Amino acid sequence: MTRNRFTVAGGGPVGSLLAILLGRHGYEVGVYEKRPDSRVTSIYQGKSINIALSDRGWQSLEQIGISSDAKAGAIPMYHRAIHGLDGELSALPYGKEGDAIWSVSRGGINEQLLDIAETERNVETHFEHRLVDVDFKTAGAVFRVEGEREITVDADYFFGADGAHSKVRRLAQSQPRFSYSQEYMPQCYIELHIPANPDGSHKLEKNALHIWPRKNFMLIALPNPDGTFTCTLFLNFSGDPSFESLRERSAVEAFFESNFADAMECLEDPIDVFMQKTPAPLFLVQVFPWSFNRKVGLIGDAAHAIVPFYGQGMNCGFEDCAELNRLIGLHDHDWDAIFPAYQNARKPNGDAIAELSKRNFVEMSDLSGDRKFQLRKLIEAKFSRRFPELWTPLYSMVTFSPDVPYSEALRIGDEQNRVMEKIMGLPNIEDDWDKQYVMDQLLSLASETLGDGQ
Amino acid sequence: MTRNRFTVAGGGPVGSLLAILLGRHGYEVGVYEKRPDSRVTSIYQGKSINIALSDRGWQSLEQIGISSDAKAGAIPMYHRAIHGLDGELSALPYGKEGDAIWSVSRGGINEQLLDIAETERNVETHFEHRLVDVDFKTAGAVFRVEGEREITVDADYFFGADGAHSKVRRLAQSQPRFSYSQEYMPQCYIELHIPANPDGSHKLEKNALHIWPRKNFMLIALPNPDGTFTCTLFLNFSGDPSFESLRERSAVEAFFESNFADAMECLEDPIDVFMQKTPAPLFLVQVFPWSFNRKVGLIGDAAHAIVPFYGQGMNCGFEDCAELNRLIGLHDHDWDAIFPAYQNARKPNGDAIAELSKRNFVEMSDLSGDRKFQLRKLIEAKFSRRFPELWTPLYSMVTFSPDVPYSEALRIGDEQNRVMEKIMGLPNIEDDWDKQYVMDQLLSLASETLGDGQ
Repeated sequence: MTRNRFTVAGGGPVGSLLAILLGRHGYEVGVYEKRPDSRVTSIYQGKSINIALSDRGWQSLEQIGISSDAKAGAIPMYHRAIHGLDGELSALPYGKEGDAIWSVSRGGINEQLLDIAETERNVETHFEHRLVDVDFKTAGAVFRVEGEREITVDADYFFGADGAHSKVRRLAQSQPRFSYSQEYMPQCYIELHIPANPDGSHKLEKNALHIWPRKNFMLIALPNPDGTFTCTLFLNFSGDPSFESLRERSAVEAFFESNFADAMECLEDPIDVFMQKTPAPLFLVQVFPWSFNRKVGLIGDAAHAIVPFYGQGMNCGFEDCAELNRLIGLHDHDWDAIFPAYQNARKPNGDAIAELSKRNFVEMSDLSGDRKFQLRKLIEAKFSRRFPELWTPLYSMVTFSPDVPYSEALRIGDEQNRVMEKIMGLPNIEDDWDKQYVMDQLLSLASETLGDGQ
Repeated sequence: MTRNRFTVAGGGPVGSLLAILLGRHGYEVGVYEKRPDSRVTSIYQGKSINIALSDRGWQSLEQIGISSDAKAGAIPMYHRAIHGLDGELSALPYGKEGDAIWSVSRGGINEQLLDIAETERNVETHFEHRLVDVDFKTAGAVFRVEGEREITVDADYFFGADGAHSKVRRLAQSQPRFSYSQEYMPQCYIELHIPANPDGSHKLEKNALHIWPRKNFMLIALPNPDGTFTCTLFLNFSGDPSFESLRERSAVEAFFESNFADAMECLEDPIDVFMQKTPAPLFLVQVFPWSFNRKVGLIGDAAHAIVPFYGQGMNCGFEDCAELNRLIGLHDHDWDAIFPAYQNARKPNGDAIAELSKRNFVEMSDLSGDRKFQLRKLIEAKFSRRFPELWTPLYSMVTFSPDVPYSEALRIGDEQNRVMEKIMGLPNIEDDWDKQYVMDQLLSLASETLGDGQ
């Protein structure tokens, strides 16, 4: 049986996974990545960049039959380890006993997926091929080979899996009726580093995501298998304090000492790094359509670049792949049906996780702050344990309930918000929160508005 | 006294007005327009394209001292002339007695403003100069002269007044932290034409904006001084009915006959025009920032392309100019202060009129439809006549209250919505709407929520 040929622009985690599933459906697939092959040339400059994978990601990999390969080397994080201003530590579980999100090396999982892709007989990978142009009518494309000439690649279908800065998406701006939005967040970020102990162990608790929540800014740290942590400082671009306002070395030192005193004992040259690095912007991209002429599609960050505050970026991209996998079967390889079905199924979920991720900065950076906010989480958690069929907390829906689409999680979360606002408005809630009448009232409100929802 | 030099890209109504005000402040201004000079070469192919001007536009022109010149040739429209399906006509006033919006020839007002600009000693206009590049740091620019070479134009400051398809804005996408959104509406449009009677008079009532509201689509007609009307058919791009679904001549004929029977007696070859023309898309563009390095600014549609359903596009652009005029005086030519002040003052209003315009399609296309909608307008109008200090209808705030910023109009309009929803929820409102208790209740609700607002 001869199947059609696909070109996939981008050999990152989503592009590689897409290539595997297309290959397993019998298609001829060419993956074109602009960077060198990290398995041959070191492109990470010794840095571990890690990202969070959770149930949606694992379930998607499982659907394609490769979750166990990918899970090797991932570190489960069962709770947030919250670092107070005074250095006090508290643990806030992510979900029920045993629920975890996983710290995964971006480079590592990418290489694993590329290895698997290359074992597929009909998948070919090409590195140092930079996309120059796509023909949105024919799926033909032009790539410039590093240091060489341009080549033309014909195919029946084309996918842009080329990430947050997608060239395919940029080229799509010339397509008729292409709606496009790129929104910068007030925050920027730099990466910092916590080395391992001399014996290779972790300097901080290994199985946790560490957060130094400071309301308008925060530092986080995710563990790597080699005993190090990769840290990210999120801070406003301008205002006070901000990357713009912190220019003097003495001011930066004072900022770190007063906000991250306990972290200062582990971080490697944070002041130097802060002074030298250009902070990276955070932005969201939303577009429509995600497919063109039933020939060219967008997938992963190329279709929906989001901010990292929910740890869902790669999960969402993998879910795109899993949905496509499902639809190829459902529509028996009829791409005239698959492209619109894929777009209709995934666009609302891409929009929802974009919104949820944006909102989650406030959640994360306020974790050790507002007493009412903490109380609300406590009440919710208690109620959810008591009536799990009525109430799954929003974080758990997004992270541990892959069968609830992101768009449903957002909708139910908003209903829950309205209910909890009423509860938190009860006159003596701060004293009475643990009393029976609060649970009763919550039960009555939740049954009323959320009864059929979940 | 030597003032700085400005380059203005775009010689449309906003660019010309900007050049006039900058010239009157003593600046050297070069206006560069990519199209030929319409006063020399006919570029309108005999077509009258008209747009609506209302109090914000007039007040802005007045501030710069040229409203009386511009008012010549404009036609006041005192009410909407609503054409029912059965051909029945009804009149819905725009505001109070004497309130009017004005049908203005886009070409005519543009030429008037260019004439005035050219009487300024220090303003120079250049046609057939297509912008190639802008240096956002230095305000230098490159233009390609039609059929000739590229020229470099140095200046101290640069404004992009180059319209909805702004090249300056496109180039700005390479600037750091530039947030950008371009959203297509489901509707597209084509222009149709109603010729004058043999004696030069209008075939329909002259001093009205004619609307054939058909819920999901509509036809409108604006009068021209030469006895003709310029009509616009707004219809979905896809779905049923749509430009996509109406492909067969017989189907188009049936569509026009059943929806616009009375208009068919005046329209010039509507079926041919429909079959031949490519429908134009409708889109909104929102960006931030509107200025770069205190050297380059965006103004008018280049900063905020909106949809035409509120008739506010040119009004908003003229208001941008008037605000800039005010700020030049306030900050005594200190452009380090003027650029941020201009952006902070105008961005919220640009966003508000974008939102209002989008919403107004539903208002306009539903005008002869829903009975409850009509009733609501009636109750609102009655209350507003009785208590004008408490309630100015949203349409009047936007159109006839230039001292209420668009952003305030939007906010107050939303408050009014919440009040009217309560009123329309009264059990017997359809029978009792004219009874005293309804006015009493409205008075109580309005005093409560809108008391200090207006």
